[in-house]
Amino acid sequence: MQQENPWKTLSKKIVYENPWIKIHEDKVIQPQGGEGIYGYMESRDSVQIVVANENDEIYFIYTYSYPSASWNWELPGGGSDGEEAIEASKRELAEETGIIARNWTKLGCTRVCNGLMTEHQVTYLARGLNMGDRAESDDEKLVSEGRFFSWQQIQEMVAAGEINDNQTLTSLFLYDHWTKKQE
Amino acid sequence: MQQENPWKTLSKKIVYENPWIKIHEDKVIQPQGGEGIYGYMESRDSVQIVVANENDEIYFIYTYSYPSASWNWELPGGGSDGEEAIEASKRELAEETGIIARNWTKLGCTRVCNGLMTEHQVTYLARGLNMGDRAESDDEKLVSEGRFFSWQQIQEMVAAGEINDNQTLTSLFLYDHWTKKQE
Repeated sequence: MQQENPWKTLSKKIVYENPWIKIHEDKVIQPQGGEGIYGYMESRDSVQIVVANENDEIYFIYTYSYPSASWNWELPGGGSDGEEAIEASKRELAEETGIIARNWTKLGCTRVCNGLMTEHQVTYLARGLNMGDRAESDDEKLVSEGRFFSWQQIQEMVAAGEINDNQTLTSLFLYDHWTKKQE
Repeated sequence: MQQENPWKTLSKKIVYENPWIKIHEDKVIQPQGGEGIYGYMESRDSVQIVVANENDEIYFIYTYSYPSASWNWELPGGGSDGEEAIEASKRELAEETGIIARNWTKLGCTRVCNGLMTEHQVTYLARGLNMGDRAESDDEKLVSEGRFFSWQQIQEMVAAGEINDNQTLTSLFLYDHWTKKQE
């Protein structure tokens, strides 16, 4: 049931950019008919990795979010460097955790914030794990610790607000959904 | 296990703003020690509403995302106008769907994109429904249709990529989690 684009774009410009993001401001005719602007962020598409061990426990990292000014438990992941999502996932996983996985399953492709961003997120399930040492990384995201949690523990952490990142929660939803389809 | 902020902020500036977003560029000392910048978007905190009827079906709207240039099934919701999240939820629900709900339950507060945004999202469950007519709305988000879907239908739409918005998927995860705790 795809329909027509209800917006008309009159002109486009980039009002800010740095190596990670571009900010667009388009001049538009709104669906309601008035003239206005639409500002949004373009960023590299990203990956999230659900790392599951043989007991179906999931691996989380404890990282600092600069915009939120807080430490949080999240799934490994990050922005693509322009490579394919599967390659980005393997690289991010190695950089952030040192883990090498033999089996990769794509769980879905979703949109991070569809009102204000262009970014898509691909979620992979990684299994068949070889736990390595975390490499020295220049990643902008500092990881202080990594740990497996059971699904029961994850549910308690979500209820307590200790896991509260949409990108992580979306990937957990896709994983839960995928798991139930296998039963 | 809160720890110290590993970043040092040297200075802050706003490099772009419009009525909906502000783009920040902070000059920082990175965790690894080098000097650099961190750019991120400040936007109004938002709400998402899981509207459930007596058959536990969930209400979705079909809306157009300008940054994604696509029509999508999503939960009702949007940016706060500065009011409390519960008031924003009631207003957004009425504007986008015409529905009035008697019972409201807060399901969680999450972070929309913690690497690039400051935005928090509050998810509410709305029950005890009075289905009204959709008001004429100046909302920037055009809604073409609204419809209830069963959990089974939702799972099929997620698998098919027809529901692929992180904000919606996060709220569905919180709802599923909350529902299981009630059993």
